[in-house]
Amino acid sequence: MTSKLILLRHGESEWNAKNLFTGWVDVDINEKGVEEAKAAAKLLQSEDLLPDVLHTSLLRRAIHTANLALDGCDRHWIPVKRSWRLNERHYGKLQGLNKTEIRDQFGEEQFMQWRRSYDVPPPPIDKDNEFSQYHDARYADIPADERPLTECLKDVVARMLPYWEAHIVPDLAAGKTVLVTAHGNSLRALVKHLDGISDDDIAGLNIPTGIPLYYELNDEFKPVTPGGRYLDPEAAKASIEAVKNQGKK
Amino acid sequence: MTSKLILLRHGESEWNAKNLFTGWVDVDINEKGVEEAKAAAKLLQSEDLLPDVLHTSLLRRAIHTANLALDGCDRHWIPVKRSWRLNERHYGKLQGLNKTEIRDQFGEEQFMQWRRSYDVPPPPIDKDNEFSQYHDARYADIPADERPLTECLKDVVARMLPYWEAHIVPDLAAGKTVLVTAHGNSLRALVKHLDGISDDDIAGLNIPTGIPLYYELNDEFKPVTPGGRYLDPEAAKASIEAVKNQGKK
Repeated sequence: MTSKLILLRHGESEWNAKNLFTGWVDVDINEKGVEEAKAAAKLLQSEDLLPDVLHTSLLRRAIHTANLALDGCDRHWIPVKRSWRLNERHYGKLQGLNKTEIRDQFGEEQFMQWRRSYDVPPPPIDKDNEFSQYHDARYADIPADERPLTECLKDVVARMLPYWEAHIVPDLAAGKTVLVTAHGNSLRALVKHLDGISDDDIAGLNIPTGIPLYYELNDEFKPVTPGGRYLDPEAAKASIEAVKNQGKK
Repeated sequence: MTSKLILLRHGESEWNAKNLFTGWVDVDINEKGVEEAKAAAKLLQSEDLLPDVLHTSLLRRAIHTANLALDGCDRHWIPVKRSWRLNERHYGKLQGLNKTEIRDQFGEEQFMQWRRSYDVPPPPIDKDNEFSQYHDARYADIPADERPLTECLKDVVARMLPYWEAHIVPDLAAGKTVLVTAHGNSLRALVKHLDGISDDDIAGLNIPTGIPLYYELNDEFKPVTPGGRYLDPEAAKASIEAVKNQGKK
């Protein structure tokens, strides 16, 4: 028996468009993001890939995207589960700063290391920084010494995988079509696991906003077709190129 | 120890405004309803009544209202639980029909009996009627012989109370501030239980759309102040009058 998993990165956010490092800062999607989420709904409907259960992060841009995508395919009523473990990577001290300015200030090499190295996190953010979420009520359940102040992708893999195993896999095993609406890096972490991508190769993988990525999984919850399938492959290709160019002038 | 319960009837729906019997028909809120939901968010925020958990029905007008109300007070990330047991009363064969026309056709007495009697349901809807939800996927988990084709308020009390006991009371007992976003009749059923209103007296109780009704509950989960408190008492009073006049020319 195979099971159905749909990954959806939130639509374009107010800060994607402004070229700022976002991480755990809780910005909303912008008008383009709203349109992307509605288009995702149409793709799900036209392929008859109707989710039975939703998993999201605790961040508004993923939640809002999911609400619109589900409303548009008449699945607004399905059960919802949320976890900080699906949050975007915490970008540490870079949160709230302009990507191009960081590139200019620290140079291409350091910039790319912070953005794309597997195991080098940016410097931690001060707990009381205006862009820190350390004191946010929604993270109060995370033990204080485990509450991230910065993360590399390896850290995201480490905190995301227990959620995958404990909460998403059981829904798949129960035969449910699962929608995971999350973020560029939490989804990269999941795709790395699903497709068995190496620590080096994951640097080259970008996930576009707002385009459902469909995986049919075998009974070991591994992809029947490596890499899955974007429901709008043309748009995905164009968007992946745009993500690669972030921070370039 | 007391606990905090907030009841919120969905904002004005497309069919409230058209004066149609809605019941389980899944219409959305209209523009006025959107504004009501946003105003509810401001009331919750200004009173520092921030929900820790949300319970909704499976109907779009309640879900959409809750999404807007929570987003507006920065609580979009809280856990969500949904159940058909919080749905509006199933209006049987009246679903989709105009209230004034029904009143004209069947007379004031029959009209008021269907709308407000405690134990007389309207005639059942045909399973295949365009306004029936009998075959809707979201109700597939309800055993076929228990899936409503019509309901009186007594039926709503009977299917709502087990959810209250099994799912809402435990959240209150855990010290959580609970938001229940539901419907005129599922909330009347709950208020009847909370305030110990008689089968006769419940006929006179109307709940306005979009105005949070706050109950502080004692350790037996009964109101400290009977009737609770509307967070905008003036608007509630005006709206209750308007509900009473529905179906009048």
